[in-house]
Amino acid sequence: MWRQYIRKVEPYTPGEQPDSDNVIKLNTNENPYPPCEGVKRVLSTFDTDTLRKYPDPNVKALRTAIADYYNLSMENVFVGVGSDDVIAMCYMTFFNSPKPILFPDITYSFYDVWADEFRVPYKTKALDDEYRIVASDYAEDNGGIIIPNPNAPTGIAEGKDFFTEILNNNPDSIVIIDEAYVDFGAESVIDLIGEYENLIVVRTFSKSRSLAGSRIGFALGNAEAVRALHDVKYSFNSYTMDRITIELGVEAIKDDEYFRECVSKIICTKKQTQDSLRNLGFEVFESAANFLLVKPKGISAEELYTQLKNRGIFVRYFNKPRLSDYLRITIGTDEEMDKLTEALQSILEAVQ
Amino acid sequence: MWRQYIRKVEPYTPGEQPDSDNVIKLNTNENPYPPCEGVKRVLSTFDTDTLRKYPDPNVKALRTAIADYYNLSMENVFVGVGSDDVIAMCYMTFFNSPKPILFPDITYSFYDVWADEFRVPYKTKALDDEYRIVASDYAEDNGGIIIPNPNAPTGIAEGKDFFTEILNNNPDSIVIIDEAYVDFGAESVIDLIGEYENLIVVRTFSKSRSLAGSRIGFALGNAEAVRALHDVKYSFNSYTMDRITIELGVEAIKDDEYFRECVSKIICTKKQTQDSLRNLGFEVFESAANFLLVKPKGISAEELYTQLKNRGIFVRYFNKPRLSDYLRITIGTDEEMDKLTEALQSILEAVQ
Repeated sequence: MWRQYIRKVEPYTPGEQPDSDNVIKLNTNENPYPPCEGVKRVLSTFDTDTLRKYPDPNVKALRTAIADYYNLSMENVFVGVGSDDVIAMCYMTFFNSPKPILFPDITYSFYDVWADEFRVPYKTKALDDEYRIVASDYAEDNGGIIIPNPNAPTGIAEGKDFFTEILNNNPDSIVIIDEAYVDFGAESVIDLIGEYENLIVVRTFSKSRSLAGSRIGFALGNAEAVRALHDVKYSFNSYTMDRITIELGVEAIKDDEYFRECVSKIICTKKQTQDSLRNLGFEVFESAANFLLVKPKGISAEELYTQLKNRGIFVRYFNKPRLSDYLRITIGTDEEMDKLTEALQSILEAVQ
Repeated sequence: MWRQYIRKVEPYTPGEQPDSDNVIKLNTNENPYPPCEGVKRVLSTFDTDTLRKYPDPNVKALRTAIADYYNLSMENVFVGVGSDDVIAMCYMTFFNSPKPILFPDITYSFYDVWADEFRVPYKTKALDDEYRIVASDYAEDNGGIIIPNPNAPTGIAEGKDFFTEILNNNPDSIVIIDEAYVDFGAESVIDLIGEYENLIVVRTFSKSRSLAGSRIGFALGNAEAVRALHDVKYSFNSYTMDRITIELGVEAIKDDEYFRECVSKIICTKKQTQDSLRNLGFEVFESAANFLLVKPKGISAEELYTQLKNRGIFVRYFNKPRLSDYLRITIGTDEEMDKLTEALQSILEAVQ
């Protein structure tokens, strides 16, 4: 039977994407601000006749723009259909050892899904009592390491020393640092790429660059590692980045002023939200991301999730060990966060 | 060393994508006509603010539009980033048997690349002396079958009886029919999907729908097989289809009149080109695709390829057994084909 040779997997479940525009969507860590003006300009001037032709398979324009922004060269840049695509390609390219790869037990919940998909053995390392990653846990023999910084869904960031310790302990493994949220307050390890040939840094345009709807992610690493990634990618799909997306990406990376402005606003709103939630008695982790992991007071996380949803406010609830008492709340606009705080007050009053 | 666990692959080489617009590009089977008017309309009215949000991970709008067009339901439709992405996902999902998969020896040269990428054992079956696929070759025990119809780069199509024979011989294998070029003159097997649960038909918007630059491909099959494909896809990347591309795809599939008009023009130009080339003494295969496989007379294929390129006309040359005497020429506009014929005449005169 053809059924017996189907790959059996348990897919990742992304946050809900409600159809309605009348909800406050704080569940998938999207940016509350629109993409930069250049994105608008691209669409209004784009010559649709060119769509009959394939895009540049080398994605030179976008890879060059990204390289310029980070003072690297195009050979250090790999782009893909969102950072999920990029990380999937990294798993296929680098994680082929019989030894297990390592990642935290509480982290982006796609890491173990990819391991199952590509049949990569893995081992998770428990966060400590304060939900911090323990660097020394990653000193044992392994087939690779993947760690987000800041971690998700905690939002907790680690400093450069933490990652140099891990890199120094693992010269024989590829170490992927997933910096999806780094722009919102953590320190990047991009400048370690020249020093550690086994370091891959993954980034996305979906969060800090307001382009979740366009699907752009990228990896930075030494030229040899990036070449290996390209070989695997070109053995999968010659043309992953479409003509329009490439141009949108170039505009988004070039408009540094707008990027900084949005990020600053979100960081500012995050601090205010943190205060409001603490005033309500919530436990709130110190977050370097565009979301907060919070433990509500006076109501269970699951119940609060449901009540917020009933009021049209979507946040993320994970029914998992050590996370089931928490909610992950994306930072929206000031106005959205005010509405969240009002809703929380009203819900809490009703249950007291 | 981290290098020892890199996946070793020999990537597929797509046809050249010259930077210049001043070339006649007959090397990657693109459509010479622009996409339909609706595509223009989408871009001119698209609300770029929505790009901050993730697209619909279920791609409901596009899957429904495709399903409606083929009188199927959304559950029968899987979409991906071009048909290469779709076929790669099919390999991962269905080709997990220790037995070899089967495909023709002369065919789309990505099939063996995917087999290497995913470590799927494979066996090729030789085309006969007339470059036709032999149905009975696919009756032996196998782990799956993939065949394009029409075949590439020959352009030769087989009829429905041919595929029912293969399907009847293989109830235990997934049989993928890659119909990338079917709209240009071959008979589809889509209406066999209800009858054969192991049949997957793959299609693309890159050829007959003039959207190579937007990256849309799809697979049609029974709901259970499509569900398995989705599980693997959602274990790879939650959001492959971006917001803009989804809308472009919906417009392209809806404008049936324009689609038929373009396809008719190409079929007509193909007949004229076939005649012109035969008049030059070339051997030309009867093609049901938007390209012709031709054997030049009085000059080697490789030499002709180079001379055409020097004149700004790109065609495809494959330095492979049984193909090295041939060129694959995409059907462009009448004007482009006239220029090709003129160039050929001039080249042939010079060598005589």
